Amino acid sequence: MKKIAVFTSGGDSPGMNACIRSVVRSAISLDLEVFGIKYGYDGMIRGEIKKMESQSVSNIVQTGGTILKSARSEEFRTKEGRKKAYENLKKHGIEGIVAIGGDGTFTGANLFYDEFGIPVVGAPGTIDNDLYGSDYTIGFDTAVNTALDAIDKIRDTAASHDRVFFVEVMGRHSGYIAIQSGIGGGAEMVMVPETSTTIDDVISKLREGRDNKKGSSIIVVAEGDAQGSAHEIAARVKIHTPNMDIKVTNLGHIQRGGAPTAFDRILASRLGLAAVEGLINGQKGVMVGVIDNKITYTNLKLSISKSKPLNQELVRLTKILSI
Amino acid sequence: MKKIAVFTSGGDSPGMNACIRSVVRSAISLDLEVFGIKYGYDGMIRGEIKKMESQSVSNIVQTGGTILKSARSEEFRTKEGRKKAYENLKKHGIEGIVAIGGDGTFTGANLFYDEFGIPVVGAPGTIDNDLYGSDYTIGFDTAVNTALDAIDKIRDTAASHDRVFFVEVMGRHSGYIAIQSGIGGGAEMVMVPETSTTIDDVISKLREGRDNKKGSSIIVVAEGDAQGSAHEIAARVKIHTPNMDIKVTNLGHIQRGGAPTAFDRILASRLGLAAVEGLINGQKGVMVGVIDNKITYTNLKLSISKSKPLNQELVRLTKILSI
Amino acid sequence: MKKIAVFTSGGDSPGMNACIRSVVRSAISLDLEVFGIKYGYDGMIRGEIKKMESQSVSNIVQTGGTILKSARSEEFRTKEGRKKAYENLKKHGIEGIVAIGGDGTFTGANLFYDEFGIPVVGAPGTIDNDLYGSDYTIGFDTAVNTALDAIDKIRDTAASHDRVFFVEVMGRHSGYIAIQSGIGGGAEMVMVPETSTTIDDVISKLREGRDNKKGSSIIVVAEGDAQGSAHEIAARVKIHTPNMDIKVTNLGHIQRGGAPTAFDRILASRLGLAAVEGLINGQKGVMVGVIDNKITYTNLKLSISKSKPLNQELVRLTKILSI
Amino acid sequence: MKKIAVFTSGGDSPGMNACIRSVVRSAISLDLEVFGIKYGYDGMIRGEIKKMESQSVSNIVQTGGTILKSARSEEFRTKEGRKKAYENLKKHGIEGIVAIGGDGTFTGANLFYDEFGIPVVGAPGTIDNDLYGSDYTIGFDTAVNTALDAIDKIRDTAASHDRVFFVEVMGRHSGYIAIQSGIGGGAEMVMVPETSTTIDDVISKLREGRDNKKGSSIIVVAEGDAQGSAHEIAARVKIHTPNMDIKVTNLGHIQRGGAPTAFDRILASRLGLAAVEGLINGQKGVMVGVIDNKITYTNLKLSISKSKPLNQELVRLTKILSI
Repeated sequence: MKKIAVFTSGGDSPGMNACIRSVVRSAISLDLEVFGIKYGYDGMIRGEIKKMESQSVSNIVQTGGTILKSARSEEFRTKEGRKKAYENLKKHGIEGIVAIGGDGTFTGANLFYDEFGIPVVGAPGTIDNDLYGSDYTIGFDTAVNTALDAIDKIRDTAASHDRVFFVEVMGRHSGYIAIQSGIGGGAEMVMVPETSTTIDDVISKLREGRDNKKGSSIIVVAEGDAQGSAHEIAARVKIHTPNMDIKVTNLGHIQRGGAPTAFDRILASRLGLAAVEGLINGQKGVMVGVIDNKITYTNLKLSISKSKPLNQELVRLTKILSI
Repeated sequence: MKKIAVFTSGGDSPGMNACIRSVVRSAISLDLEVFGIKYGYDGMIRGEIKKMESQSVSNIVQTGGTILKSARSEEFRTKEGRKKAYENLKKHGIEGIVAIGGDGTFTGANLFYDEFGIPVVGAPGTIDNDLYGSDYTIGFDTAVNTALDAIDKIRDTAASHDRVFFVEVMGRHSGYIAIQSGIGGGAEMVMVPETSTTIDDVISKLREGRDNKKGSSIIVVAEGDAQGSAHEIAARVKIHTPNMDIKVTNLGHIQRGGAPTAFDRILASRLGLAAVEGLINGQKGVMVGVIDNKITYTNLKLSISKSKPLNQELVRLTKILSI
Repeated sequence: MKKIAVFTSGGDSPGMNACIRSVVRSAISLDLEVFGIKYGYDGMIRGEIKKMESQSVSNIVQTGGTILKSARSEEFRTKEGRKKAYENLKKHGIEGIVAIGGDGTFTGANLFYDEFGIPVVGAPGTIDNDLYGSDYTIGFDTAVNTALDAIDKIRDTAASHDRVFFVEVMGRHSGYIAIQSGIGGGAEMVMVPETSTTIDDVISKLREGRDNKKGSSIIVVAEGDAQGSAHEIAARVKIHTPNMDIKVTNLGHIQRGGAPTAFDRILASRLGLAAVEGLINGQKGVMVGVIDNKITYTNLKLSISKSKPLNQELVRLTKILSI
Repeated sequence: MKKIAVFTSGGDSPGMNACIRSVVRSAISLDLEVFGIKYGYDGMIRGEIKKMESQSVSNIVQTGGTILKSARSEEFRTKEGRKKAYENLKKHGIEGIVAIGGDGTFTGANLFYDEFGIPVVGAPGTIDNDLYGSDYTIGFDTAVNTALDAIDKIRDTAASHDRVFFVEVMGRHSGYIAIQSGIGGGAEMVMVPETSTTIDDVISKLREGRDNKKGSSIIVVAEGDAQGSAHEIAARVKIHTPNMDIKVTNLGHIQRGGAPTAFDRILASRLGLAAVEGLINGQKGVMVGVIDNKITYTNLKLSISKSKPLNQELVRLTKILSI
């Protein structure tokens, strides 16, 4: 292998730049040429491919977002689109690619690998931490800390007014951000897609808190919870608790940006190097990850089809600590 | 004057604790006894009044919220309620009070002063910076920095995806948070209650940006803008700009909490001392503030009836810098 | 087991309060009575022991330091001192203790357990991450992020002036903080006690950087590096590089404080529960930890006598990424 | 006036980039061409002058440091050096310059203006806030908040161990950072060059605190205090207070970097516009500033020769609040 390329795709996550930097510098350190593809699959099709040097990635380890930009590509969903993309890679002599992104990115990468046989290593870049084959994804730790920082601020207000706050965090199919920011934020309850919590459960918990002289309560809701959005849940709870002062906040897009935490920068750096070494060592059609703090390679098919269960220890911990 | 009391009322704002601390320690330094009233007017009626010592306010200068808590009081709107409150003050020998809060707090304070003649000095504690009689209110600078920090994070995502973001910040009647966080965040446009911006203006600005090769744009919307909420505005803009990738975030309650900035701690500390000295020097029925960096006392009636105009220099600055 | 106690000892670390909270609430949830001992071993001897309720630990999960305070105890080094301490525990009917701290704390705990047979479970609370028997210690992740935040700031200045910065971080015997903040901060070099780096190595690296047109360089030095302090190293390097603009910063005590990160709050919460369950299940004379993300109990003797090697993968990563 | 240039010089300060951005965009908005000069006077001599567009300053409002870099210039101290610099400006048709920096920068700017008559407007960019002619300098508010954030962390440790901390902050000739971070951080004492504090004063204050049952104390020392560095002061105090646990931290260079606060971004934006408008309106040999929140222009000679006194209200406030 002489030449590889790297790109980001799907929703951005903090640490993607640290991962790009690691791929570029690892490649150069290991005597490869390395190219950056802008705007993900879309840029691959349009030929937005440029050689990168060590200096191209100076001073980005600390930045959110992605210098290679990201975009959705309808065209890549077509056979012709993928063919164009492949030909652009060939034109530059690119023999292997590192795809940084999530579920959707890897579905495309897997198809691309199946059709054209080009070695692909995926690096898990998503705040949701929902990828099978890695204990952590790049951006998750930062997103949790951003959510936590917001919950800390909200607690100030909740405590000053003896209020109940419903805080909605990201996680359409996964409660990872919710459960971690909930435990970290000392939440009274966490509602996640993986477990079933009824409106009655919420009401009981709030009444129990009131009986135990809790002034305020915080309930963290993952956006994908079966009971609906935080606003919907709060509205239904309110009907039964007319004397409680209930407020709702949806943290929204702030969870995607910001300077990555140390954890995410180091994870991104490790995975970037491991992705490059994977390509050199003949890995293809895999996602690189860390399991029990060790580098692993998981078949892309597996990583996109299997789901990662929520840590039940944390679910139990939430209950024990919220008395 | 021998004994005074302090309380917080209305929405909490970062720096209220620094102000409470300053009132308490200034009073003690100037040989007064000082009492804390919990839960604002409500606690005054219920008699939640306790003597405070220098140690009672240790280690709170850096905390958000208010250790004296805050609450709405229906009862204080009645003559009987206010009478009970006054009698509770008398019982403790309290001869003057410092009321930390906003518009609503001062309306109550003014009425109370009119009816019972008890010397009241208000200290402006609200994130909205909308009080006539002070260039700045306690909590405003922190709220602006919190909003700015969120906008910085959102810009990472906006820039990575070439997106347009509408960001809603607090300010029902006032565009102060919006204009300051907009300039600080490099927003392309700021929509505030004080000026009129049409949907067409927004669309023109976005198209102009696109023509000038701006990848992304951020539009900050004060919650009280005449065109509606950020969600409503974005929905109407979207109809005319189907090819733009438009997202909306409402920052919500995180703007109220958090550790106060240096600016707010110092402002709060200065105003706390000035409130106590005001009482000692015979001020009554006034709000303490800073104008051109000097301590001033403004009649409460004025401060609640007159509105503070938005700084037009900042409005112009936004336009010049968003090219 | 009916009654247990918890205390903190040695240098404070962020997350100790989250751990205290978890011990207290876990104990109550699992039907134990729980006591807090103030000022570590010193308070145990002086009898500063108080029953704790669920509310005693409200609103502390997000705070740095330790509400139970910490102190050195000369008296506990004597047999009589330890006897007094033991009798105070007996007086309250305390049958097991959770000791939150580091090396020194556990040495005392181990001796105490040996002499009096009282079940002790240690929870690793130290920013140094140098305890055998746990992949992470409570406070380490926060300290790394604090150091990283400082390095990010320093990089702004270094880059603006094309400067070389030596940044000293904590770690008398261990390079964990240095290596992680170095990788995260994009440092050109990391000097740690576990590996040998000569002054010539530093000079070569800086010259290599200059030849590669690096404007600025950052070198992170663990306080325990064999070459001396950052100031000493910089002075020796300067002699040979008179044209380089070299500055030094020692981050010092800011690394110990601050609101704990999500990682540290969750780790502290998990270890607190596991410590209590350990006591209930008959563990004694052990330290609770996490290895490969699973709860483990390691004999205290082992944990204080064996050293935890630095992750060699990270050492290699630093070199590869600093080209 | 058709063409102007902007540069930064001297120590960098947070908000310089926001000011550069404002100069560039204001110039373009007002139909001027604008050039950026790299590395201050040094780059002016070497001819590192480049035209800037609106896009040249995209996405920098939030960054620390200076994209135009800064450097010392020995050559500019010579007549020949300044002549070369002037000729380089002429070559590009530059008719006016905006110099962002502090004392040293303005001394050079003033000389340059005197000798060659080229219109110069200085913008005060320094964390020290020591320039006559402006209530605030760009970077000061950020530096104070950075110092405050550090003091907040240190307080966690101080309180946990009942310690005395001496914290040294920047300010060789000026106590502004010290007094503001001291009040904001709830310091027991602030030692600044403008007032005289003896070692005996420190010892009395610490003993008084101990007698009042203060667990911990924080003393903020400006680097230019007459009693010496924080380390020296602490060493002398220690001799007389052997039973106190005294620690020292020097915050160092972290105070110069980091994302600017809202206050600094807005100040920098206002001053950038005012500098450009100043040039257009015939200002020359002046520094732009804000006094009582209004834009002012002060003769450069005045601004470098007169000193700005410390706010005595804040000195008194420190004493009152530290009981």
